[in-house]
Amino acid sequence: MTCLSHVRIVLVGTTHPGNIGAAARAMKTMGLTDLALVAPRVFPSAEAVARAAGADDVLAEARVHQDLPSAIADCALVIGTSARPRTIPWPQLDPRACAELLTASSARAAILFGPEQSGLSNEALDRCQFVLRIPCNPRFSSLNVAAALQVVAYELWVAAERAPPPPQPSAPLANAAQMESFYQHLDQTLHGIRFLHEKKSSPSLMRRLRRIFNRARLEQEELHILRGILNAVQRQLNRQE
Amino acid sequence: MTCLSHVRIVLVGTTHPGNIGAAARAMKTMGLTDLALVAPRVFPSAEAVARAAGADDVLAEARVHQDLPSAIADCALVIGTSARPRTIPWPQLDPRACAELLTASSARAAILFGPEQSGLSNEALDRCQFVLRIPCNPRFSSLNVAAALQVVAYELWVAAERAPPPPQPSAPLANAAQMESFYQHLDQTLHGIRFLHEKKSSPSLMRRLRRIFNRARLEQEELHILRGILNAVQRQLNRQE
Repeated sequence: MTCLSHVRIVLVGTTHPGNIGAAARAMKTMGLTDLALVAPRVFPSAEAVARAAGADDVLAEARVHQDLPSAIADCALVIGTSARPRTIPWPQLDPRACAELLTASSARAAILFGPEQSGLSNEALDRCQFVLRIPCNPRFSSLNVAAALQVVAYELWVAAERAPPPPQPSAPLANAAQMESFYQHLDQTLHGIRFLHEKKSSPSLMRRLRRIFNRARLEQEELHILRGILNAVQRQLNRQE
Repeated sequence: MTCLSHVRIVLVGTTHPGNIGAAARAMKTMGLTDLALVAPRVFPSAEAVARAAGADDVLAEARVHQDLPSAIADCALVIGTSARPRTIPWPQLDPRACAELLTASSARAAILFGPEQSGLSNEALDRCQFVLRIPCNPRFSSLNVAAALQVVAYELWVAAERAPPPPQPSAPLANAAQMESFYQHLDQTLHGIRFLHEKKSSPSLMRRLRRIFNRARLEQEELHILRGILNAVQRQLNRQE
């Protein structure tokens, strides 16, 4: 479906089935479909399906492995997530660099997430080329496993989508001539209601008003509405005369 | 602790207390502490504390509001998250652009997350200057609310870590309460001049006008000028009676 089909998510020793469901949901929102579970405590489970909230196809296709080596056997690149500092430093990636790395190649890759309490063991990290760390509050780095996966998957999706076409303005913008004509209309009306008059015609007031509407970058249709308001004011003034 | 203390997370009408706890946890991992809850279905709750997993200080300091206006009254910038396409397009941000915007200023800002099933109402979005959309799989865009918050908060953390200290705004911006009061004044005046009336009081017209002025991000002094104009119109109307 996307160019992320070569990326496998591997949940190792996950304790809470709800987290497996939430992980499947997080994956599917970002176009990931390849889920492997290594020795989950409870699987399959109704709680996982409930938390998957529509991503039960990802759960249904998940493969369960008894050990990590079989889950990553066909992967050319293995990346382990970790919150803990490690005594032996692995080459580190942040989620953005990880996404750039993975979208630059179609080699099969795995991203490993460890058990909720302990994280990946050193034995698991020994099988990784990189350690992935999510930048976060050093005083509270306890990301939920599905939340961590959501961030990693989001960066993958953004990288895979790279350089999306810039958002088109929804409607044509007013041009400078139209804006000038509007400002003349506004100035005229403000004199009509005596907000501006001989004693108080400070050019700086009109300048302030210009700033506001220039900043708003009006669509033509919006300009039309504003001029309709000015016309309505002028009609009231004419009734008075 | 971080330069994110001016950013408030507002959960509107959250149905599941577990999501409130997971949201608090997601916030704390990324250095956010200001949580407001608008009409939560269940709060406080043991389930929220359990899912907060150590972020119970964020829950304990959360303020509960009966309605959205009181939760954002002091905010100069209000951003609503949305997965749905809207008929009237608001200016859109993705999480990275949102994080850049919020870390470039120290003005108080709110990011709103709607109810799990329905998302933010149009009435809530009418109070927003921007709509925030998380890039995701268009065929399955159902992000859990705490997962969406995790992504947004992660981008804020990353931006805050990179950003130089925010420059002080040159002039204080109008807050949400002041803007609401202005919109009431505008609505009243537009009825006064019969630009709006029984046959033509389409709420979409007021919505278009809100979009313009929300987009302009008015300074308090500019708001004062605009209200002076409305007062001048009303004085003219009173002379007629």
